[in-house]
Amino acid sequence: MLIGRVIGEVVASQKEPNLQGLKLLVVQNTDVSGQLKNGQVVAVDSVGAGVGEIVLYASGSSARQTSATKDRPVDAVIMAIVDSVTQSGNETYSKSQDPN
Amino acid sequence: MLIGRVIGEVVASQKEPNLQGLKLLVVQNTDVSGQLKNGQVVAVDSVGAGVGEIVLYASGSSARQTSATKDRPVDAVIMAIVDSVTQSGNETYSKSQDPN
Amino acid sequence: MLIGRVIGEVVASQKEPNLQGLKLLVVQNTDVSGQLKNGQVVAVDSVGAGVGEIVLYASGSSARQTSATKDRPVDAVIMAIVDSVTQSGNETYSKSQDPN
Amino acid sequence: MLIGRVIGEVVASQKEPNLQGLKLLVVQNTDVSGQLKNGQVVAVDSVGAGVGEIVLYASGSSARQTSATKDRPVDAVIMAIVDSVTQSGNETYSKSQDPN
Amino acid sequence: MLIGRVIGEVVASQKEPNLQGLKLLVVQNTDVSGQLKNGQVVAVDSVGAGVGEIVLYASGSSARQTSATKDRPVDAVIMAIVDSVTQSGNETYSKSQDPN
Repeated sequence: MLIGRVIGEVVASQKEPNLQGLKLLVVQNTDVSGQLKNGQVVAVDSVGAGVGEIVLYASGSSARQTSATKDRPVDAVIMAIVDSVTQSGNETYSKSQDPN
Repeated sequence: MLIGRVIGEVVASQKEPNLQGLKLLVVQNTDVSGQLKNGQVVAVDSVGAGVGEIVLYASGSSARQTSATKDRPVDAVIMAIVDSVTQSGNETYSKSQDPN
Repeated sequence: MLIGRVIGEVVASQKEPNLQGLKLLVVQNTDVSGQLKNGQVVAVDSVGAGVGEIVLYASGSSARQTSATKDRPVDAVIMAIVDSVTQSGNETYSKSQDPN
Repeated sequence: MLIGRVIGEVVASQKEPNLQGLKLLVVQNTDVSGQLKNGQVVAVDSVGAGVGEIVLYASGSSARQTSATKDRPVDAVIMAIVDSVTQSGNETYSKSQDPN
Repeated sequence: MLIGRVIGEVVASQKEPNLQGLKLLVVQNTDVSGQLKNGQVVAVDSVGAGVGEIVLYASGSSARQTSATKDRPVDAVIMAIVDSVTQSGNETYSKSQDPN
C-alpha cells in the first residue's frame, strides 16, 4: 500500500455501469510525515475518506477485494484512513495534529 | 486509475482473434487540469470515448472487468469520461470549458 | 498496452517445461511514430510478429489471456501487429511506409 | 520480491473491516548490503517482523497468498526476514552483524 | 519478462511456511548484451539457475505459474536460462562466450 493525501475528486457521468455510486478521489503520494511527493492516482473510496485526509490505498487486483469494488474495473482503492505514522519510535504524522 | 487525454488511435488488423471489434486508443497522462504530462498507454475503449476527451483508465487485471474486455489480453481500459475534477474545492478541469 | 518495435530474439533451452515452443522476442518501447524510446521487455509472440515490426504488447496477468500463454509463467505477450497510428487525425506511423 | 528495512508503523482505526488485526509496517527499499535507497511501501507483516529488520516483501496479487492476507485489499506483504545476502560468494549483509 | 544476471542469494530462515525449500536469488537487470543496468529483484529459481547466469524472470501473478511457486507469496520467478540473444540478426549475448 502507499500513503497519500486526498486532494480532490473526479466527477464522471459517462462510465462503466458497475461504477455507479462509487466516489472517485484524487490521491497524491506523501512521505511518512504527510508531505506531498510525486505520484498521483484516482482511487475509489471504501472507507468514507474525504479531501485533506491521509490515507492508505491498495493497487492492482487487490483494489477489488472490498465490497465496494468487487468485480469492477477499479485498480486503486482507499482501504484505510491513517491515524498516525511512527518511524523508529517517533511519531512523524498524527491526524489529530494535521492542520490540513 | 489514471487521468489521461485520448490523443490518437491504433489500427491493427493482425491480432489475437478475441480483440476483434475493440477500439484501441492512445491515452497520454495528464494532471488534474488536463495538461499533458509524461506517460502514454494504448487502452481499449469501453465507454464511447473519442480523441480529445479526458478519461480515466484502469490497468492490469482490473482492465478485464468490463463486458468488452473480459478474458481478453488487454491490460488497460477506459472506464469513464471525466466531466470535472476538483482540487480542494476548486474546479481544475471542466469538460464543458475544455477547448480541445 | 504499450507500443514497441521487435528488435531481437532470446533463445533459452533450459526453461520451464510449459514454455516449450514459445517464441521469445525482445521488444523496445516506441512513441506513436515508431521511434525507439527507453524501456525493453521480452514478450511471447502470439500473432506471428517478426524482428522490425511495430507491435502492441500486454503485460501482467493479461499476458496469459491468449491460447499460447494460458497458465504459463509469462508476463508479456505481443497481441497485435500495428498497421498504423494516428494522432489528432494525422497518421504518425504507417506500416506500409516503415523502412525498418 | 524486494529487499527492504522496516522503518516504521502505520496506525489506522478507520479501515476495511477485514483488515482488523493486521500490522501495517513501513518498509524502505535497500540494496544487498542493507543500505537504504529510494522507494517505500506499507506492507502487512505475516512473519513477525519488527522495526529495524531487513525483510523481503512481495507485491501485487502475490501479497494475498498468505493466511493473514488472503482475500483482503492488501498489495504488499512481508513474507521473510532476511538472515544474510551474498553476492558472488561474499556476504554483503548479515543479520547477526547488523547494528540496527 | 526481463533479462537479468543472477548476482547473489538471500538466506531467510524465518518466513512464510510455504516458502520452505525455495531458492531466493538476487537478479540484476541487464541489457541484451548481458551488461548490468539499474533494477534488482529477488526471484525464486524454478530452473536450476546459479550465480553468474543470464536468465529471464517473470513478475506478478505470472510468477506463480510454475510448480515451485503455485499459490505462494512470490512475485518473481526465474523461468529460463538464456543461451543467446540476437538483435537484428547479430548475436549480442552468448552463454558459451560469457566470461562470468
